[in-house]
Parts: sequence; structure tokens; C-alpha cells
Amino acid sequence: MAVILITGGARSGKSKRAEFRTRAFPGQPVYVATAEALDAEMQARIATHRARRGTDWIEREVPLDLVPALVATDGGGARLVDCLTLWLSNLMHAERNWEREVAALAAALPGLKSPVVLVTNEVGLGIVPDNALARRYRDAAGLMNQMIAAAADEVEFVVAGLPMKLK
Amino acid sequence: MAVILITGGARSGKSKRAEFRTRAFPGQPVYVATAEALDAEMQARIATHRARRGTDWIEREVPLDLVPALVATDGGGARLVDCLTLWLSNLMHAERNWEREVAALAAALPGLKSPVVLVTNEVGLGIVPDNALARRYRDAAGLMNQMIAAAADEVEFVVAGLPMKLK
Amino acid sequence: MAVILITGGARSGKSKRAEFRTRAFPGQPVYVATAEALDAEMQARIATHRARRGTDWIEREVPLDLVPALVATDGGGARLVDCLTLWLSNLMHAERNWEREVAALAAALPGLKSPVVLVTNEVGLGIVPDNALARRYRDAAGLMNQMIAAAADEVEFVVAGLPMKLK
Repeated sequence: MAVILITGGARSGKSKRAEFRTRAFPGQPVYVATAEALDAEMQARIATHRARRGTDWIEREVPLDLVPALVATDGGGARLVDCLTLWLSNLMHAERNWEREVAALAAALPGLKSPVVLVTNEVGLGIVPDNALARRYRDAAGLMNQMIAAAADEVEFVVAGLPMKLK
Repeated sequence: MAVILITGGARSGKSKRAEFRTRAFPGQPVYVATAEALDAEMQARIATHRARRGTDWIEREVPLDLVPALVATDGGGARLVDCLTLWLSNLMHAERNWEREVAALAAALPGLKSPVVLVTNEVGLGIVPDNALARRYRDAAGLMNQMIAAAADEVEFVVAGLPMKLK
Repeated sequence: MAVILITGGARSGKSKRAEFRTRAFPGQPVYVATAEALDAEMQARIATHRARRGTDWIEREVPLDLVPALVATDGGGARLVDCLTLWLSNLMHAERNWEREVAALAAALPGLKSPVVLVTNEVGLGIVPDNALARRYRDAAGLMNQMIAAAADEVEFVVAGLPMKLK
């Protein structure tokens, strides 16, 4: 039904806003984490998010296979996917075809019964990065955001914790 | 007549939006490319833009002398200048006085008869760059965007393919 | 009374906008500079700001103790704090507890009698920085902006010299 994309910079309040939008739907919310707790910095960030979110969420760790996870959890409460940019990074590290995967997600979203709130990052508003890999990732993230925004019913851009409605 | 500035991050959908705005004016559109196909990465990007845009455009390669090119093509269809940040980079590499050139462009725009749609990049929303040259470029791009925005009739900020009206 | 936060990228026209908002209040405006003129690049930037602003401002250099300075200057004209991201950087270099200091500022703002206009930077919309210190600063700046935006009566996001109302 409803597909909502929440975008913004690092520590802009995107996740908090996405949690608020997810909780507004009826049913038990489902947290779809694309992060893997591989190092201490990431573990600390995951713990902070979990502490704020509360314990009444169904939790799924989905580093790569997002569409199957959304299909498997469909029919219940709203899903919060946090976040697409990390998912993209995981796909690229695993040498998966990210353009095909993103296109498949964009195609699958409108057919889902339960709402989906997706968090992503804007990473293309700084100086062009020196290394080619970072430029490739930055380009991919920009294209992904355009593709998912086109498939979404609503898009919000969060700055300093405050949402601007883009769509 | 109409001067429209389209700004946004890398791969935010700025060029696509600018093509759409340019095509909405009557007459054969003119594509003013500030890029030079100096390496494979840039050649690939130019080819992608050209494939999307279609072949019904008049094309001009203008790395430096933008005002004369806009005067020379005035009186016909709308011009799309893609993009100002690359033009600025070309001016700085050629050791031209970029502040004077940008001021001359801002002064010339309101006097043109045919519409002009200009694409630029926001590059100042990341961490302060380590090297002084990148900081200098970042400052110049920000000042240029302010100067051209002040001279424009309309300014749009594109995020994830979606335009926000700034002016 | 009025607390106004002006955010945006480097050279986006934030300071100019903040000066305009500050001057709109009655009384002699107070310029609270968090910058210290430690090198030539910073000295040049300070001189540019001062030349544009004019000489009719009361000036205070406050690298660290912002809340006492706002209390000491309360009751007169509006204060312009330029800028919070530099203040944050000063706090971190001095190994002060920035989260406590930012929380104290957010708590103090609503109780002040004279208006306060605060300038800050968005630094989280580029690629994730390579070094951990830059990531830590970026995260801190994002959290600070959320905290001060929550305490503010008005928040504006400036792009290419043009303000967007966030709150």
C-alpha cells in the first residue's frame, strides 16, 4: 500500500522520522536492518538505534536479499528498512548486480500489501571524492535514490530533524 | 527571457530535470556542454547524457567562453547549459578570473531573448576538504551559485529526482 | 524571545541571510563570533564578513563559553552567533563535553529575552569520510543541529542564497 522514502544526510534525524512514520501504521512494526555488526563503531550505532526504537519490533537482519524479506514479512505491520545506502554498499561488496537489484526492489514495492518505510542517505552534495570507488558508490547511491523515489508514494528530505515533503 | 537554475547533488536527476524544462519551450533546443571528453569516465558520462537526451538538439562544446556562446545562439530555441560547476573548474584550471567571468554571466543572462536553463552542483554540504585547492573550489562554487541564483527567474533544488522550488 | 536557526552548506549565503534576519529586530545588533583568527585563511574570511556586515555591530569573540555570552548580552539588540559548527569544533579541540554544552545551549535559548539568530553548517551530505575523527565530528554536528533546531522557533535551510523554511 504505502511506500515512503525518507532521505537526508548523516545524523539528520532520518531514522527517528522513519520510526515515527512506521509506528503510525497499525500492527506490530518490523525493523529490517541492512547493517551487519562487523565492528565496534557499527555495533554502537545499532545499539543506539535499538535503545531509542524500543523492544516491541519484530527484527530482521537483511544485508542483501531485501525483496524476499519484504515479501516474507508482507501482510502484517509496516516495515522499516534502515537503510538503503548500506544495502547498496553490501551489494557492491558482494559483487552483486546492484542496478538489477535496485530495479527489482522498485518494481516490487508497489505490489506489497503492508506499508514500507525506507531510509536512505544523500551522499552527493560534497566535493567530488578523490578515489574512483567512492565516486562509483556516490553515483550508484544517487541513481538508486532516484529509482526508489520514483516508485514511492511519499518522499521526505530530513534536515536537522525536520522533514521537507518532496513528493 | 526565462532564466532557470537547476541545482542539486551528484546524480540527483538535475540534468534530466533541466532537459524537461528546456524542452517545454518552443523551438529546437540547444545543448551547451561545458565538459570536454578528456578521459574514459567523462566520455561514458557524456554518452549517457546524449543517449537520454535524443538527437534533436543543436550541440555546442563550450568549456570556457559561455557568454559569447549564449549570445551567438540567442534568438532560437532554449539553451541548456550543463553544467556551471564544470565551467568553473575549467576557468580555474585555465587561470582565468572566475569571479569576473561569473559576474559577466550573471549580468548577461537577463538581457538574452531565448530562455536559458543552467545546471549546477551543490558541493558544500560535506565535511571541509583537507586540501586548500578543494576548499577554494568549494567556496567559488558556492559564491557562483549565489550569484547566478540572484540573476535567475526560477531556481530549483533537485533531490532524488524531485524538484523543490527555491525561487 | 525569537530563536532562529539558519543552516546550509559552505558559501551558501547563510551568514548574509542571518545578518538580514538579525537586523530586522530593533536595537543595536550583537555579533558573536566563534571563530578565532588563527591563520591567514580564517583572517581573510573574518575580514570579508566584517566588511559586508558594517561597523554598527557590537562584537564579541566567543570560541567556547557561548551560554554565558548570550546571558551577558541579553536585554539589548538581537545576537547573531556565527557559527555553531565552529563552536562545536572548538569544544572538541578543547576536550570539553560537547553533548553537555549543546544540551545546555538548547535549554538556555528559550529563556533569553533578546532574539538569537544562530548559523550552522550541514556537513553530512557527502561521502562518509575516511578518518574516524571527521566521522565523529560529522555525527556530532548532525546531532547538534537536531538539538538546536528542536529548541528554535524558526529554522531555515539556505541553498544558493535562497532560504527554505523548515520550521
